Amino acid sequence: MTSTPSPQDFAHRLDRTAEAIETLLGTILSDTVLTNEIARPRRLLEAMRYGSLNGGKRLRPFLVVESAALFDVAPAGALLAGAALECIHCYSLIHDDLPAMDNSDLRRGRPTTHKAYDDATAILAGDALLTIAFDLTTRDEVHPDAGVRLALTQALARASGIGGMAGGQMLDLAGEGRFGDREPPDVARLQQMKTGALLRFGCQAGAILGRASTSDYQALDDYGRAFGEAFQIADDLLDVEGDAAALGKPAGQDAALGKATFVTLLGLDGAKQRLRDLLTAADQALAPFGARADVLRAAARFVAERKN
Amino acid sequence: MTSTPSPQDFAHRLDRTAEAIETLLGTILSDTVLTNEIARPRRLLEAMRYGSLNGGKRLRPFLVVESAALFDVAPAGALLAGAALECIHCYSLIHDDLPAMDNSDLRRGRPTTHKAYDDATAILAGDALLTIAFDLTTRDEVHPDAGVRLALTQALARASGIGGMAGGQMLDLAGEGRFGDREPPDVARLQQMKTGALLRFGCQAGAILGRASTSDYQALDDYGRAFGEAFQIADDLLDVEGDAAALGKPAGQDAALGKATFVTLLGLDGAKQRLRDLLTAADQALAPFGARADVLRAAARFVAERKN
Repeated sequence: MTSTPSPQDFAHRLDRTAEAIETLLGTILSDTVLTNEIARPRRLLEAMRYGSLNGGKRLRPFLVVESAALFDVAPAGALLAGAALECIHCYSLIHDDLPAMDNSDLRRGRPTTHKAYDDATAILAGDALLTIAFDLTTRDEVHPDAGVRLALTQALARASGIGGMAGGQMLDLAGEGRFGDREPPDVARLQQMKTGALLRFGCQAGAILGRASTSDYQALDDYGRAFGEAFQIADDLLDVEGDAAALGKPAGQDAALGKATFVTLLGLDGAKQRLRDLLTAADQALAPFGARADVLRAAARFVAERKN
Repeated sequence: MTSTPSPQDFAHRLDRTAEAIETLLGTILSDTVLTNEIARPRRLLEAMRYGSLNGGKRLRPFLVVESAALFDVAPAGALLAGAALECIHCYSLIHDDLPAMDNSDLRRGRPTTHKAYDDATAILAGDALLTIAFDLTTRDEVHPDAGVRLALTQALARASGIGGMAGGQMLDLAGEGRFGDREPPDVARLQQMKTGALLRFGCQAGAILGRASTSDYQALDDYGRAFGEAFQIADDLLDVEGDAAALGKPAGQDAALGKATFVTLLGLDGAKQRLRDLLTAADQALAPFGARADVLRAAARFVAERKN
């Protein structure tokens, strides 16, 4: 039994994984690793690096690593699976920022990929990051068992595609009314797909890598689902109550765009109550793992209480 | 031993595979198969169908099916692998047609996906088709052996990504001089990546599904490489000598754009000679399979002599 981690312990572990992912992605997206009889087009590789090596929190890989750690999975395999997941996340940001999509010029205080390069390069960099994710999940280093790597690959494809993240982005665009008749979106369903699916996959991935029992898989899946919704509600609350300086972007953007959020759906107090309920649900889902899951508990509190 | 197929036999087999792929993709891209606890956004599914159910020749799946047939692989698995490959091909056409890329309004005489829908939907439809390919290659129905499905998945990711098709498209755009200094592209290398990699993968896929010996794998890989280059040279020749009505687009587009092609590289006669040499190379590569590979021989002649 490990003792309950302090916030400092949690922050330290999060930072450690973020550094490991940054290093790993830097190695993967380099000439030395992408060996191929045909040399790589340099501009594309540079844009892929620009769009992914950005010092992010790497929350999704963190979920993979810490969920897998419950089953004593070798960290190297979990990190590689986490890197694949992060490639999907980064591709989605590059494509979402495009002029045809959300038309964002800045992300994390620096120009978005299509501003730093151009639209065509950004589209291709997103495509190539999406594609390389499935190269990574199939590699021997992820797990010795081919069946495990296959299950992981398939789960990642499903979390990312029309039934997951890509579908959620479509619903989000439709909710803006840009395709004619404006149907008020089902915010919960939209966010389960758009942001929830990848976070939830992070937890599923740990269970898959750990060849978890059905009940342990279910427990982590329940945790991941609560985590994903908590993440989004906290995001919506920050947009209303957040500090622009800490956010790195103006607050109130959702309201200005007339976007349906958990706050417009539930009201400010309702959203805060829902967030508390989700933290309880996340905590309860982890009960089978006892104190070993304290880092995951701290992660849920972290996303709920974060300031940016 | 089968007898040498007549051109009619070949055309019949090509048509039969095309029909099977059209049906299979239609089923895959439907509500009934994409079961998920979260319903799919209809507009995205429709755009994915629009961009893939287009009555194409389905040459790439044909290569998978016929290569796999050399090893008596069950046709259903090869068809599913072929459908995955076709999803990648169709996504690439959708993205390549975008205003930021080649800015094409028409394909096969009908509006391109972004014209029929909009740019954002086309980007997402491409992303989702790319993603679902890796859902398909991991399915049990592809092959009973998980290791085979993994190898197939990884080979598809590598053929499609920065070291393959996506990288080739980047080189093609760079060759147009749109990123500043115009470096004359290495046409052969560019086309090996942009169009060659997926055609070559089609042949590799048959060998992977058939658990081919190293020498049989190499034979099909050599054939696939010659096939891919022959396909592109024939394309370049058609742009110079083709009939606009049969092509469904004006001839001479490459020259008008000042594009480097095999014809500008080798001259008209040189390109025709190279095409003949490649047909010989494709034929010789298939020697180990004897008359059983006659359909693949006919396929190489077909792409070399096609009129559109």
